[in-house]
Amino acid sequence: MMSKSPVYPVIWHEDRVLLIDQTKLPSEYVIVEISRCDDMARAIKTMIVRGAPAIGVAAAYGMYLGAREIQTQEREAFLSQLEDVAQVLRLTRPTAVNLFWAIARMLKTAYETIGSVEALQASLLKTAQAIQLEDLQTCQMIGDRGLEVLPSNPQQLCLLTYCNTGALATAGYGTALGVVRSAWREGRLARVYASETRPRQQGAKLTSWECVHEGIPVTVITDNMAAHCMNRGMIDAVIVGADRIAANGDTANKIGTYSLAIVAKAHNIPFYVAAPLSTVDFKLSNGMEIPIEERHPSEIYQIGETLVCPPGVEFYNPAFDVTPADLITGIITEKGVVTPSELQNLQVMQPA
Amino acid sequence: MMSKSPVYPVIWHEDRVLLIDQTKLPSEYVIVEISRCDDMARAIKTMIVRGAPAIGVAAAYGMYLGAREIQTQEREAFLSQLEDVAQVLRLTRPTAVNLFWAIARMLKTAYETIGSVEALQASLLKTAQAIQLEDLQTCQMIGDRGLEVLPSNPQQLCLLTYCNTGALATAGYGTALGVVRSAWREGRLARVYASETRPRQQGAKLTSWECVHEGIPVTVITDNMAAHCMNRGMIDAVIVGADRIAANGDTANKIGTYSLAIVAKAHNIPFYVAAPLSTVDFKLSNGMEIPIEERHPSEIYQIGETLVCPPGVEFYNPAFDVTPADLITGIITEKGVVTPSELQNLQVMQPA
Repeated sequence: MMSKSPVYPVIWHEDRVLLIDQTKLPSEYVIVEISRCDDMARAIKTMIVRGAPAIGVAAAYGMYLGAREIQTQEREAFLSQLEDVAQVLRLTRPTAVNLFWAIARMLKTAYETIGSVEALQASLLKTAQAIQLEDLQTCQMIGDRGLEVLPSNPQQLCLLTYCNTGALATAGYGTALGVVRSAWREGRLARVYASETRPRQQGAKLTSWECVHEGIPVTVITDNMAAHCMNRGMIDAVIVGADRIAANGDTANKIGTYSLAIVAKAHNIPFYVAAPLSTVDFKLSNGMEIPIEERHPSEIYQIGETLVCPPGVEFYNPAFDVTPADLITGIITEKGVVTPSELQNLQVMQPA
Repeated sequence: MMSKSPVYPVIWHEDRVLLIDQTKLPSEYVIVEISRCDDMARAIKTMIVRGAPAIGVAAAYGMYLGAREIQTQEREAFLSQLEDVAQVLRLTRPTAVNLFWAIARMLKTAYETIGSVEALQASLLKTAQAIQLEDLQTCQMIGDRGLEVLPSNPQQLCLLTYCNTGALATAGYGTALGVVRSAWREGRLARVYASETRPRQQGAKLTSWECVHEGIPVTVITDNMAAHCMNRGMIDAVIVGADRIAANGDTANKIGTYSLAIVAKAHNIPFYVAAPLSTVDFKLSNGMEIPIEERHPSEIYQIGETLVCPPGVEFYNPAFDVTPADLITGIITEKGVVTPSELQNLQVMQPA
């Protein structure tokens, strides 16, 4: 079931996409085969594939699968139908900007490719594969860049991370968990604390699974324990991922990130955001403008077969929150680590 | 199964104690009959009965049940064996001071009662019943005192509460949830937000159950959502209970309380602790001295039948944390509401 080989949540195999079903981990390791765009849209929506960069990769392949289904041989009709495919994929999840970025890049490829519909389709597959490969390389760079800015003392660090920002959340290697991986590789990691990340428990389920898979020492705590652990001196730095970063550095990430940033600040513990530059939405001046997805309340009241709450209770289930820039020590990208106020300097380096 | 009558977690009925099994709520309403001290100790340890004041009441009855089992008619032998009973009960849970307070009061009763062993036993039952009745009255006073200090604006408040501090956690009515009840009775409550309270989910399971039972509008959120809700202006005040309060106002309460206090302060939202004066341990100068119970990791990794984490993960499961006095707006007791620095003034009023 588990091998020690690297984890890739999205794989292009022969003529279809293979996804690790992340809703089944860690109890079952199931591969889902996706051959149609609609199935990819559903897989993104139901979080079979999740994590901002991985969603971007999955959506890119979704664009190709949709392009492959278009019957016309007429270029204009093809492009028009490809816009419909793009719209289906855009409606899956509202917060992660990587989704929109990957779709836009795929559309741009189609418009810029000269030749037959068949040539356009081939070009779209190549671009999806390029997006995937670039994300993997980007993550490895993020990991190594992040390692450089971690506290130099103690030699072996205890890092707190949130949600899952690992190989499963990206093309591979991870963003925030990529930094953890690089630290582990270089002998700079004592232990990673994985915060559970209610309601969907991606920290407890996915991050812990990745760490165990690679032999990285991991302690799972519930989200409300982070402040207590910080107070006891158990945490040297916090590293989280991002679903969308505004131009001023305000960062939308998994619900609970904001709370973690506040308590880190209260204990003078550095708080880093690790994300590819494609996660920065330079069109948004600040985080107030980032749309926040609300998901079904069953994510709160049902765990496995267990119904936690009695009938008659109401719920509020925002999937993300926004951490203001002033709580963020640094933003770790593949192009370097910057303070939120320096983020604008990287705009020219952002991939098209 | 559910009636609209008040909830009492501990009831003396004929010759035994009836406990609502709080590990089964909200899916099942089961009454457990306790006739022996050992069974009461087990019920406290396994959290069939939980909540600092309710533990005190249960331990008081446990002392009587233990006293009833002592065979000797000789006073000195009886008192010596009663000390053993007290020790069994003391070893159930380390943090809540009400446990130790109730046991000490029961012992004092025994030592101060003149007469036969039978008279001592009768006196112990009366004292246990008195402790229970006093706690109920105390909670009602806490509720009404607390209402007086709640923000006067808006007229109908949204209050965030944590864990379960309701009727189930006390002899009845509740401490922090008693304040919510009083606010509801007086038309001052718009809604209560019940934070889930991982790992055991007492907020999602028990507080929500009590609120639905009484028709109080309740929204359950996960613990990591509190800061986001505060940032959105959804919370007017936070009210929590306490397991032990040091003389300087530092407060041990359910894990996650400290985090909540930090984020409340960051949003300038008042943060109140509601507890009977018997919760204050004037012997401890500050919260560093309060022992923190660690519980079994299965509370984190198992929910119902679901195993959340893969094998190979480590866990840290402190059941409580300590909120420093400077994060606490006021401490609501039956004798009045004080700032942490004024707490010492109430020492003379503390029940013996």
